[in-house]
Amino acid sequence: MLTLVRKRSEKSGLPPGSVIHVGEKKVEKTGFTLIRYDAEKFSMEKIDSLEECLRLKGSEGVTWINVDGLHETDVIEKLGERFGIHLLIVEDILNTQQRSKADIFDDYIYVAIKMHSSVAETMEISVEQLSLVLGADFVLTFQEQPGDIFDALRKRIEGGKGKVRRMGADYLAYCLIDAVVDNYFKILESVGEEIEDIEEELLENPSPETVQHIHIIKREMILLRKSVWPLRDLIGLLNREETDLIKEGTEIYLRDVYDHTVQVIDTVETYRDMIAGMLDIYLSSVSYRMNEIMKVLTIFAAIFIPLTFIVGLYGMNFDPDSGPFNMPELRWRYGYPAVLAFMALIVVGMGFYFKRKKWF
Amino acid sequence: MLTLVRKRSEKSGLPPGSVIHVGEKKVEKTGFTLIRYDAEKFSMEKIDSLEECLRLKGSEGVTWINVDGLHETDVIEKLGERFGIHLLIVEDILNTQQRSKADIFDDYIYVAIKMHSSVAETMEISVEQLSLVLGADFVLTFQEQPGDIFDALRKRIEGGKGKVRRMGADYLAYCLIDAVVDNYFKILESVGEEIEDIEEELLENPSPETVQHIHIIKREMILLRKSVWPLRDLIGLLNREETDLIKEGTEIYLRDVYDHTVQVIDTVETYRDMIAGMLDIYLSSVSYRMNEIMKVLTIFAAIFIPLTFIVGLYGMNFDPDSGPFNMPELRWRYGYPAVLAFMALIVVGMGFYFKRKKWF
Amino acid sequence: MLTLVRKRSEKSGLPPGSVIHVGEKKVEKTGFTLIRYDAEKFSMEKIDSLEECLRLKGSEGVTWINVDGLHETDVIEKLGERFGIHLLIVEDILNTQQRSKADIFDDYIYVAIKMHSSVAETMEISVEQLSLVLGADFVLTFQEQPGDIFDALRKRIEGGKGKVRRMGADYLAYCLIDAVVDNYFKILESVGEEIEDIEEELLENPSPETVQHIHIIKREMILLRKSVWPLRDLIGLLNREETDLIKEGTEIYLRDVYDHTVQVIDTVETYRDMIAGMLDIYLSSVSYRMNEIMKVLTIFAAIFIPLTFIVGLYGMNFDPDSGPFNMPELRWRYGYPAVLAFMALIVVGMGFYFKRKKWF
Amino acid sequence: MLTLVRKRSEKSGLPPGSVIHVGEKKVEKTGFTLIRYDAEKFSMEKIDSLEECLRLKGSEGVTWINVDGLHETDVIEKLGERFGIHLLIVEDILNTQQRSKADIFDDYIYVAIKMHSSVAETMEISVEQLSLVLGADFVLTFQEQPGDIFDALRKRIEGGKGKVRRMGADYLAYCLIDAVVDNYFKILESVGEEIEDIEEELLENPSPETVQHIHIIKREMILLRKSVWPLRDLIGLLNREETDLIKEGTEIYLRDVYDHTVQVIDTVETYRDMIAGMLDIYLSSVSYRMNEIMKVLTIFAAIFIPLTFIVGLYGMNFDPDSGPFNMPELRWRYGYPAVLAFMALIVVGMGFYFKRKKWF
Amino acid sequence: MLTLVRKRSEKSGLPPGSVIHVGEKKVEKTGFTLIRYDAEKFSMEKIDSLEECLRLKGSEGVTWINVDGLHETDVIEKLGERFGIHLLIVEDILNTQQRSKADIFDDYIYVAIKMHSSVAETMEISVEQLSLVLGADFVLTFQEQPGDIFDALRKRIEGGKGKVRRMGADYLAYCLIDAVVDNYFKILESVGEEIEDIEEELLENPSPETVQHIHIIKREMILLRKSVWPLRDLIGLLNREETDLIKEGTEIYLRDVYDHTVQVIDTVETYRDMIAGMLDIYLSSVSYRMNEIMKVLTIFAAIFIPLTFIVGLYGMNFDPDSGPFNMPELRWRYGYPAVLAFMALIVVGMGFYFKRKKWF
Repeated sequence: MLTLVRKRSEKSGLPPGSVIHVGEKKVEKTGFTLIRYDAEKFSMEKIDSLEECLRLKGSEGVTWINVDGLHETDVIEKLGERFGIHLLIVEDILNTQQRSKADIFDDYIYVAIKMHSSVAETMEISVEQLSLVLGADFVLTFQEQPGDIFDALRKRIEGGKGKVRRMGADYLAYCLIDAVVDNYFKILESVGEEIEDIEEELLENPSPETVQHIHIIKREMILLRKSVWPLRDLIGLLNREETDLIKEGTEIYLRDVYDHTVQVIDTVETYRDMIAGMLDIYLSSVSYRMNEIMKVLTIFAAIFIPLTFIVGLYGMNFDPDSGPFNMPELRWRYGYPAVLAFMALIVVGMGFYFKRKKWF
Repeated sequence: MLTLVRKRSEKSGLPPGSVIHVGEKKVEKTGFTLIRYDAEKFSMEKIDSLEECLRLKGSEGVTWINVDGLHETDVIEKLGERFGIHLLIVEDILNTQQRSKADIFDDYIYVAIKMHSSVAETMEISVEQLSLVLGADFVLTFQEQPGDIFDALRKRIEGGKGKVRRMGADYLAYCLIDAVVDNYFKILESVGEEIEDIEEELLENPSPETVQHIHIIKREMILLRKSVWPLRDLIGLLNREETDLIKEGTEIYLRDVYDHTVQVIDTVETYRDMIAGMLDIYLSSVSYRMNEIMKVLTIFAAIFIPLTFIVGLYGMNFDPDSGPFNMPELRWRYGYPAVLAFMALIVVGMGFYFKRKKWF
Repeated sequence: MLTLVRKRSEKSGLPPGSVIHVGEKKVEKTGFTLIRYDAEKFSMEKIDSLEECLRLKGSEGVTWINVDGLHETDVIEKLGERFGIHLLIVEDILNTQQRSKADIFDDYIYVAIKMHSSVAETMEISVEQLSLVLGADFVLTFQEQPGDIFDALRKRIEGGKGKVRRMGADYLAYCLIDAVVDNYFKILESVGEEIEDIEEELLENPSPETVQHIHIIKREMILLRKSVWPLRDLIGLLNREETDLIKEGTEIYLRDVYDHTVQVIDTVETYRDMIAGMLDIYLSSVSYRMNEIMKVLTIFAAIFIPLTFIVGLYGMNFDPDSGPFNMPELRWRYGYPAVLAFMALIVVGMGFYFKRKKWF
Repeated sequence: MLTLVRKRSEKSGLPPGSVIHVGEKKVEKTGFTLIRYDAEKFSMEKIDSLEECLRLKGSEGVTWINVDGLHETDVIEKLGERFGIHLLIVEDILNTQQRSKADIFDDYIYVAIKMHSSVAETMEISVEQLSLVLGADFVLTFQEQPGDIFDALRKRIEGGKGKVRRMGADYLAYCLIDAVVDNYFKILESVGEEIEDIEEELLENPSPETVQHIHIIKREMILLRKSVWPLRDLIGLLNREETDLIKEGTEIYLRDVYDHTVQVIDTVETYRDMIAGMLDIYLSSVSYRMNEIMKVLTIFAAIFIPLTFIVGLYGMNFDPDSGPFNMPELRWRYGYPAVLAFMALIVVGMGFYFKRKKWF
Repeated sequence: MLTLVRKRSEKSGLPPGSVIHVGEKKVEKTGFTLIRYDAEKFSMEKIDSLEECLRLKGSEGVTWINVDGLHETDVIEKLGERFGIHLLIVEDILNTQQRSKADIFDDYIYVAIKMHSSVAETMEISVEQLSLVLGADFVLTFQEQPGDIFDALRKRIEGGKGKVRRMGADYLAYCLIDAVVDNYFKILESVGEEIEDIEEELLENPSPETVQHIHIIKREMILLRKSVWPLRDLIGLLNREETDLIKEGTEIYLRDVYDHTVQVIDTVETYRDMIAGMLDIYLSSVSYRMNEIMKVLTIFAAIFIPLTFIVGLYGMNFDPDSGPFNMPELRWRYGYPAVLAFMALIVVGMGFYFKRKKWF
């Protein structure tokens, strides 16, 4: 869970630019998916070796190479070399513990984004890093493991729906970022449902599990926040910065995804506010219940303790024969009924007292 | 309640500019209201079909078309096409989960605003999105359902009161925004009353319902805040931005509504501060009550437990005949009165002890 | 108390610039006080009708017209017309629920300020709005009710003390604002005394009343804050803005009152910090007391419950004649003293146990 | 303690520039200390009358006049007149309730700083105002009472150590400010020791006194903060502002003292964070103790209450002769041992139960 | 622990530029390590005397002199003199209580950084100051004690791995700063593990030790934060400032270490958020447990107290012979079984009552 900085230390002491994979090894073998398209043509191949992949790469249209698995560092390094990517950037691609950021160079743009996986089913929080390199006519994406959120996009490209086939590599990059941001909405939706569930729990049957629940949601919000704020800055930078790699027609779409990011941040902050209030409600309800429990105890104690004293009193063994003052009541004709009546009086009196105190 | 991002996910994977309705379907049929006026003339018609509506639209004076219901996407799309609205904006109109914002184009301005409905009666929080398109001589408004807060404005136009008939479409747009902001004041007023009610409850009879009450108000404040802050930015933008669509005479009114928005924000923040304090008061009052309950219990226990011990003592069955030390008290002439007196002493002593401790 | 937005809603739906009084009606009849002075002359008249007032207004020196009572809207409107004040500003004057602000026009400046009345005696929080219009040679002030904080200023003008008689209308306006800010210091002083009182209460005898007390002070701070922050902006604006209405010699005084406002804000924030801590202390003291109460209860229970068990044990009616093991103790020669000794041992043991636990 | 705004109100209603002492009268008689020096010469005299002081003031080297006591307003006013200080500044010197600030004029600079006295011994918080006027060749300092933190500086000047004798009046002013800031470090040191003490208390024996302790430290931090933040701004202003009064060689020293002020602020904020956490620890430890107390009570009650019931059961006086089912146990041969065994069983059972619940 | 400002006060009253060691004396003797290298050559010597060290210093390649121990102030002063370092900077080197900062001069740059030592094993927090002086062809580092985090770097230089041997002194300085920042990651990693441990503790067995644990982590975060924020500013300054001492090729590396610092800050803030939530969870779990304990007590009390009353009732010694109403039950044939049955009924009834209240 707390893999925020885990494994990062392995790099301590190494020279900068050391090509080392920082993060968990999540797949056995690095896999490549090569997609090439222009307005007319489309091809998609799953390839195992880098050489094959580079051989197949054409020189026309847009090329999108997706890499799954980052632990085979030499393969990534070779790929970087082939596309003229600076060694420091290759290092960044391999370090999955990074902050979301964009580095703009003359002939390519490097973007690192955090992808969160939905928490709805498993309550497990998993964060994966997506590295994206945008060149003039290619996009490289690097993921830690296969299985992603870009299937719909791939189908859209294949089917030629929307503008993607008519636009360049920058539009493809936008579509990828947009898919990640859209995925945040999905997560927020399931978080919203969780919050509703917790609210119901709080009303009906608050328990330590509810607190655990709140705690997990809270943490997810903390992590989301950590991912989304730099994302906004990153997209803002891509919008502002003057670069030939992003064409004018794509800018309006970047503004749109920027707006979406702001909305994600807004919702995250709103959820944080809501969650903050829920723990207070839990605590106040626990306090209130305690009061109720104590009232029950106190009512029982206050009614029966005096009665028990009285019956104890007449259980004493003072010898009535020893003197006229030694418990003569015991021999009165109506002694027993009188005591019972007296005790009934006490009960009624206590009842009134607690009634007036509004204890029940 | 938590429809902040609900349904948004249906759009995941679709190409940008996909004309899809995001939100609840709140009406059966899309309805149109066409209002045309200039300084002399005024007409208002409720129309069911878009074609009819577009046919009736004149070329003189100001035209205001209000659309109720957003689920018939093709109708909205056609309307957008007819007035030259960009597809991305049509998408925004249909997506009711948006953040309040203004997009300024050369020949029209798009404004999205959140309208909150009053919470006073039902305690239900409902947020509706109002989309507004301001052109040179027309205003289009899009609402999720019929029944709105513009009746007074319509009557004002019809009656020719105020400046609205003499001014252009930009003034009409201002009036619409002003009506939304005025409605916020109405909501804040009822919230203010709620807060007073809660304060009374807190003083007289704090209960978990009070906490629920506080919680609901708190959430309403969170949502209001989320709606109002971007609204301020939006109106600020309209003020600053240079556009021919907003005439000079209208600017002073926009500044006025900007001031009102700031006042709404101010009040929301003040209420938030007040509400934050109320939960503390609830908790401290629950704690104090607990102390009171415990005092009652402890006083009862501390007084009667020793007494019960004493009467139990003389209820023991040691045989006085077996030895001179076996409970000779039982046969003393004044044994019983002596014990009663001793117990009375204990009660008085305890009374003094707790008095000094200021327990009652 | 919560009249922050009260009555505001009456205006909903009215055209902008509608001259309507928003607020409580606090006086029966609108009254005027006309003061005219220059370095040599001074006159002050209390007048009932506006016409009389306008007739008397001379053309030389500085004219200060103070208006008490805002519900006779036509009178205020006429006055506004006479001095060339824009209808929107007249609307602002009548709306007493406004935020403090300054509007600078070519030939007059409009300033709205909140005046708080001291809370010391009645614990009642009352906020009044002062509207001030500064022209080239006149100052108009509008208050909700007679009786104000400007008596000292009037006497100063009459007596010719200070520079006020030698300076123009802008200096008079400064003096009025300064009087309002000085009044804030007075309120803060009494709040400071309240805080000291509460601190003593907290140390000696914390009770729910203390919490109420804290709550009231807290709310007063919230309201003060709401009034003072815009006041600072307002005075800052008057300082910065270039206008002929404020002469160079007056600017240094405006800077001085600006410094005072900053000091008021500083003190308000410091008080808020202090108050925030006090509730924590209350809660911790309530918790501690609870511990003390529970200790008393537990010590009593832990000592007497075992004893009561023992005496109960020897109160059992097992028949010693039925067998040699049936409570032979009851017939031992030293049975009773032995039991007494054993119980004394238990008491001593418990005493040591709780001593070691530092319970007393 | 809460003299933040005390006595300020006496000035209400007075014209601006009124020379009135705001603050406590702390000395009987105003005293003057005249120090004159240049690279070669040094003289220091304690003088009682202003005239004497002004007569002795030479025209060469640097003159430093220190004034102790501010209640003789006419003396201060005369001094101000003599050195050409504006009446508003004289007013500021006399008003000891001011915010730290610097006013830069053409021929002198006015600086007001708060000096805190160490809290270590008396736990009393005392804040004094130091006013400093820097001219071309003189420095005037005004304090509320004799006895200050500048003794070391005076000795340094007298002994000719450091650069102070070779530098001008601006360097002297720097040294004075530096001494005040150095004094803050001293206070922070003692606060740091206090915090350590409290931490130990919290671990070993938290009591309401600990909370009081925390509260006092917290308040001291609030006041320190209130003093130090404006001090930073003030020194920053002296650094930035272009004035001939501060020579180029002194600027590097001002930057140094600026760095120190930032460090003071840093430490104050760090302490605030630490203190905030300590109250939480107190509360959690009180809660935990409460749990422990309740466990003891519950264990006693749960074990002995059933036992007491059982012995009570066999203390009932049902007549075994009246029927075969009326407590035949009382006459069983092993009735008593059996009951004892049964009760032992209950104790063991309870023991296991609470053991499993980890209550002891 | 709280050595934030400790010992600082010794300097009070001394003239600025006084060469005094502020901090703990951590070593006996100042030691020097002289490293000289260029692309071809490398030498490293440990030297005891400064003279020897300065004699050996060559004039070619890069010279790195590391100094361990700061209490021999004259040695440090001489070294400063030899390299032309300003006396104020020497003072800064010796004052180990400083804020991280960078001072840029024409011919050297002074950098002060805080190094935290890992908390994993000892839970002890120790902060050491590293001073670094970067000249055209030399780097001086000053540490409080031997044993540092630069061993890996030294080996890298010796082995000629990476670019360090080919680059200048500025790159060496970068490598040193990078090593410090890398060390922060290491600390954050162990903090992350601590947080996970605490979370488990919280779930399984929350105790006051857990709170202590949280408190220590919290404090470490406060201190880290205090160290890292200025570090970011410092590196940002080195990036922005135009100086010949930092060559163009090194700038990209400085940007990289800047990014890392931002990431450290991000993680520290995230951890702070997480820790803040953990105390709430502890408190809510303690509250919940209290409820559970009280329930056990109340159930026991509520069931057995009435029973004990009943058995006490029939333990009364009223004489059945004295009247027909004096406890005739005692002589009923089924009196005893009837009472037993009645008590069983009460137990079952209570059971149902508490079941319905969901108490178990």
